[in-house]
Amino acid sequence: MGVVCGKFTVQTKGQTEIIDITKLVARQIEQSNLGSGTATVFVAGSTAGVTTLEHEPGLLKDLEQAWERICPRDIPYAHDSRWGDGNGYAHVRAALLGPSLTIPFFHQKLLLGVWQQIVLVDFDNRPRIREISVQIIGE
Amino acid sequence: MGVVCGKFTVQTKGQTEIIDITKLVARQIEQSNLGSGTATVFVAGSTAGVTTLEHEPGLLKDLEQAWERICPRDIPYAHDSRWGDGNGYAHVRAALLGPSLTIPFFHQKLLLGVWQQIVLVDFDNRPRIREISVQIIGE
Amino acid sequence: MGVVCGKFTVQTKGQTEIIDITKLVARQIEQSNLGSGTATVFVAGSTAGVTTLEHEPGLLKDLEQAWERICPRDIPYAHDSRWGDGNGYAHVRAALLGPSLTIPFFHQKLLLGVWQQIVLVDFDNRPRIREISVQIIGE
Repeated sequence: MGVVCGKFTVQTKGQTEIIDITKLVARQIEQSNLGSGTATVFVAGSTAGVTTLEHEPGLLKDLEQAWERICPRDIPYAHDSRWGDGNGYAHVRAALLGPSLTIPFFHQKLLLGVWQQIVLVDFDNRPRIREISVQIIGE
Repeated sequence: MGVVCGKFTVQTKGQTEIIDITKLVARQIEQSNLGSGTATVFVAGSTAGVTTLEHEPGLLKDLEQAWERICPRDIPYAHDSRWGDGNGYAHVRAALLGPSLTIPFFHQKLLLGVWQQIVLVDFDNRPRIREISVQIIGE
Repeated sequence: MGVVCGKFTVQTKGQTEIIDITKLVARQIEQSNLGSGTATVFVAGSTAGVTTLEHEPGLLKDLEQAWERICPRDIPYAHDSRWGDGNGYAHVRAALLGPSLTIPFFHQKLLLGVWQQIVLVDFDNRPRIREISVQIIGE
């Protein structure tokens, strides 16, 4: 049994951009030399989140529109009144989605569905360089 | 310390069916012979998710209606225009809920509340056989 | 490698109160004597959840208002018709948010962003004493 602390960065455009990071996570598992266990994917920061999605152009649009219904960009946010950042919507969306995803792997293979990709969603209102931790625990 | 890779399947009706899988997860922990650790429950596929809920008929209806407010079935989805599946709503709901849940256990007992069940939510628009991984890490 | 089963309680006011529990989680890691691994924060009960947020007064208000849009308190819930608890909204919100969060740590330090706090959200319609498990797995 062991822990391997992987890490990578992703350059994003923000604006609820949805980025497929499956291969980057899979590579961390390959490099870990652990056969089976869990990979915890965690994004540092409070305006981005992690989930899974079939990463195809239609759904990228559909998911963005769902967020626009749940937390519209153009309503007033108390965060923006206080700090003037204009990204209050992004903080709320990120808190609802969550920054963490734990995925099992077996024989070094993530136990995802065929059409299921790991995605980083960057809600911020500007480009960001995101730091993603991949904490791998296994044997 | 060790990893035990459990797995089971569930036949669902889809249509945002909410299925109590607590006993199926608990059985995997009993069979693991590990006393304390975490169980990561993960559903493969991009139109289902996992969470906890007091699994009683009233809340099954309430949660379904909440999803109908957040991602209505009868609005246009770009996914459906492209692929004609008619399950765009299900993909978006699943991405918002997430496919993974990690639950601590101690003395082989899940640390859930008394009225808190582990539930699989199948959003798809047709019956499915779902494969659930239970990755158990502990000692 | 080892597992350390931490636990603490939090007195809440309910009513979608959002409580910063970062220091309480960090203390569990310090006491564990494990250097790197994951901490799974789990709230027992079906009317509360866990996520991360920049814990500042503006966003506390913004997040509460988002929940009010998604699951309003003043619409009918089948749960309330059956049980008369008046907290149907709280159950639904908790199921959507989720009770679990897994966070990597390294050199005994949680890999959070600078403005990213771990928060407990208590949706219930009355004060509660919440039991939080922190399952720490690492080496």
